[in-house]
Amino acid sequence: MVEQLTVELGERSYPIVFFGGADAGVFVLEKIRQTGRSVTALADSKVWDLHFPKNDDLLCLKIEGGEASKSITCFDNACEFLATNRIARDGGLIAIGGGVVGDLAGFVAASYLRGIDFYQVPTTLLAMVDSSVGGKTGINIKAGKNLVGAFWQPQVVYICTEFLKTLPPEEFSAGMAEVIKYGMLYDAKLFDQLEALEHDLTWDHPELSAVVRRCCEIKAEIVKADEKETASSGGRALLNLGHTFAHAIENVAGYGTYLHGEAVAIGLVLAAKLSVRLVEAGRSGFAVSDEDVIRCHALIERYRLPTDLRISLHRVAGDLAAPKLSIEALLDAMRRDKKVRSGKLRFVAMEKIGNAVTVDDIPEGWIRDIWSEAGAE
Amino acid sequence: MVEQLTVELGERSYPIVFFGGADAGVFVLEKIRQTGRSVTALADSKVWDLHFPKNDDLLCLKIEGGEASKSITCFDNACEFLATNRIARDGGLIAIGGGVVGDLAGFVAASYLRGIDFYQVPTTLLAMVDSSVGGKTGINIKAGKNLVGAFWQPQVVYICTEFLKTLPPEEFSAGMAEVIKYGMLYDAKLFDQLEALEHDLTWDHPELSAVVRRCCEIKAEIVKADEKETASSGGRALLNLGHTFAHAIENVAGYGTYLHGEAVAIGLVLAAKLSVRLVEAGRSGFAVSDEDVIRCHALIERYRLPTDLRISLHRVAGDLAAPKLSIEALLDAMRRDKKVRSGKLRFVAMEKIGNAVTVDDIPEGWIRDIWSEAGAE
Ligand SMILES: NC(=O)c1ccc[n+]([C@@H]2O[C@H](COP(=O)([O-])OP(=O)(O)OC[C@H]3O[C@@H](n4cnc5c(N)ncnc54)[C@H](O)[C@@H]3O)[C@@H](O)[C@H]2O)c1
Ligand SMILES: NC(=O)c1ccc[n+]([C@@H]2O[C@H](COP(=O)([O-])OP(=O)(O)OC[C@H]3O[C@@H](n4cnc5c(N)ncnc54)[C@H](O)[C@@H]3O)[C@@H](O)[C@H]2O)c1
Repeated sequence: MVEQLTVELGERSYPIVFFGGADAGVFVLEKIRQTGRSVTALADSKVWDLHFPKNDDLLCLKIEGGEASKSITCFDNACEFLATNRIARDGGLIAIGGGVVGDLAGFVAASYLRGIDFYQVPTTLLAMVDSSVGGKTGINIKAGKNLVGAFWQPQVVYICTEFLKTLPPEEFSAGMAEVIKYGMLYDAKLFDQLEALEHDLTWDHPELSAVVRRCCEIKAEIVKADEKETASSGGRALLNLGHTFAHAIENVAGYGTYLHGEAVAIGLVLAAKLSVRLVEAGRSGFAVSDEDVIRCHALIERYRLPTDLRISLHRVAGDLAAPKLSIEALLDAMRRDKKVRSGKLRFVAMEKIGNAVTVDDIPEGWIRDIWSEAGAE
Repeated sequence: MVEQLTVELGERSYPIVFFGGADAGVFVLEKIRQTGRSVTALADSKVWDLHFPKNDDLLCLKIEGGEASKSITCFDNACEFLATNRIARDGGLIAIGGGVVGDLAGFVAASYLRGIDFYQVPTTLLAMVDSSVGGKTGINIKAGKNLVGAFWQPQVVYICTEFLKTLPPEEFSAGMAEVIKYGMLYDAKLFDQLEALEHDLTWDHPELSAVVRRCCEIKAEIVKADEKETASSGGRALLNLGHTFAHAIENVAGYGTYLHGEAVAIGLVLAAKLSVRLVEAGRSGFAVSDEDVIRCHALIERYRLPTDLRISLHRVAGDLAAPKLSIEALLDAMRRDKKVRSGKLRFVAMEKIGNAVTVDDIPEGWIRDIWSEAGAE
């Protein structure tokens, strides 16, 4: 089975190719060869070892998965790798791995020789539904996450859920937080569908491919309307539902303590609660009920993701006590977030499930209360 | 006097503002304030100390001039500087200095938060006529010069030849190599004008501003037609007249031995000689004469720039013996040049003075001969 979806961005349009069948690694190698280009790979070393034939002679730089690889040092090494292998302007770079490898490789492709062609082969659920589509690339610096990067759209994204067979279950759950996010912010039907599933989604669930595909469609639609996140309201910023909270949690707890998806899960619940406050304050357009919050909560809980700051982490893998976080530190981290516009905090809230908007004038007191209810001190 | 010229690039169009008068640094600071943005500067430390008021509170990171500053380390430091000073997406970065600071700052502006606004204040002749216009930015890595970067157009380029008052004379000469290049590749009238000048150009020559402006016009026209150097022939590549030779010289002699402009000067003479060979081989369109070569030679010599590999370096400043270079090493460096397309060497040659074209099928024997005649061994 090979299906296709186009991300419409004028001359930067590209297809997302969905494919199935047993040997995903071999299929990808074949696709690479078909480009006829001198293509080099940057691959997550774990994924490379698990899914790709040992004796293939594709030029490949292996990278450790995990946030620490999105560094200036790895960026430098990858550029040197391309240069010493004499990759020219008409060459290409293919990212094989999760969001970490994709974000790093994308910035390398954007910068090496001022830009060469780029291909994405996402191998985590998060990367399939989110990071591989839309052209945001980047690395971390000491001062913060994703502060350096480029908008650089891929030529093709190849998605095969077979890769997820080997993905650790807590990483699968982390990806589910982003899936649920799409339902909450854009697609009530997707939300309903997720709720109605008899069995939880897993890599081999018959519905998974369709769900991943729907998420890609949503991301493509949003990115099409606002490629570089310049819309003054709505637009690409909607994809940050729950993320203003999540980034603060990750930052204050220390990166790596929470999986990104775990922090997003909590952030989604808090964004739902914020939305109810907007209803209570009589803001026009807002119609989220306490029951809606419960529905979001239940769907997140179903994938054993945390829903507030008291709930233990990595529950799928092994239950870790959540650290105590200070309200002041969380607020301060929010103020430093790069989404801050001329000093004002910006949030994404739901008018109802399936329909999010950006809101610029939330009283700080509300946020303080929400953090406190969530277990911050 | 304030004049203006527009670089026409659709939604990325921008003005080059030419201004005169005594206190260039103060004028620039005023312009920065007028943008009303939170703008930060990356400045050549020498230029900053010489031309800018000591007690100004513009946020500024000082950078040493010279090639070594176009490094990953300086890139990282500059990004951290912006982040710790909380420059947001609506902030801007202004480059004050020569091509080194401009290229570095441009890549920082392109990458920090995936791109913020960028302003150029070139303070060397080379930067005024060449590097500040056109949007090529970049840094060096171990494997080679300018291998990492971005196309990132500035919002405004501010040009004031007053800054050149303090420029060392050998740096002024190096810039003249690029000025002469424009005459050779695009504008016979400019070439004639340079030949006809009674006095050599200097920072306070009454014709200098007009010459700089004409060079900017030429660069703007060429860049407009081929912003990202993707034309299959001609286009932006024409600006590399003499540069395939020059890069090989710099690379083999070791960066910093020759000033870039000195290597370009030799490269221009060799490109003229290559053009004569094309005439001799009966290639249609080519009409350069031995006399034209002599004219180019004389104009370059007039600014005390070297015209072959036997001529001493830095003659304006102090006469340094030229190193001996090997023909094989030079050829090898040419093959590694990033302008190589699918393995074929590409040269720029003159059909006549004022009219250059790209040529892809030069016999290697010719290049070997040309290097040998120029004094390589
Ligand atoms: N560019 C964007 O638009 C965007 C959007 C969301 C997130 N992100 C970024 O994505 C990153 C997180 O991505 P991630 O969650 O995919 O992290 P990741 O790439 O680190 O992958 C998570 C872990 O799974 C392992 N792994 C990956 N594929 C596997 C497979 N098929 N089998 C077994 N193990 C596998 C990796 O080695 C790693 O240990 C963050 O840096 C975040 O900033 C980017
Ligand atoms: N981006 C482009 O399109 C492009 C085009 C051509 C060259 N370049 C790049 O430009 C760089 C060379 O630029 P450059 O020749 O300006 O070098 P530079 O920036 O190093 O400046 C040369 C020297 O002059 C000093 N200086 C600068 N302005 C001065 C002033 N007003 N008074 C006194 N001293 C001053 C500097 O400190 C330095 O020592 C190279 O790295 C080259 O790759 C880029």
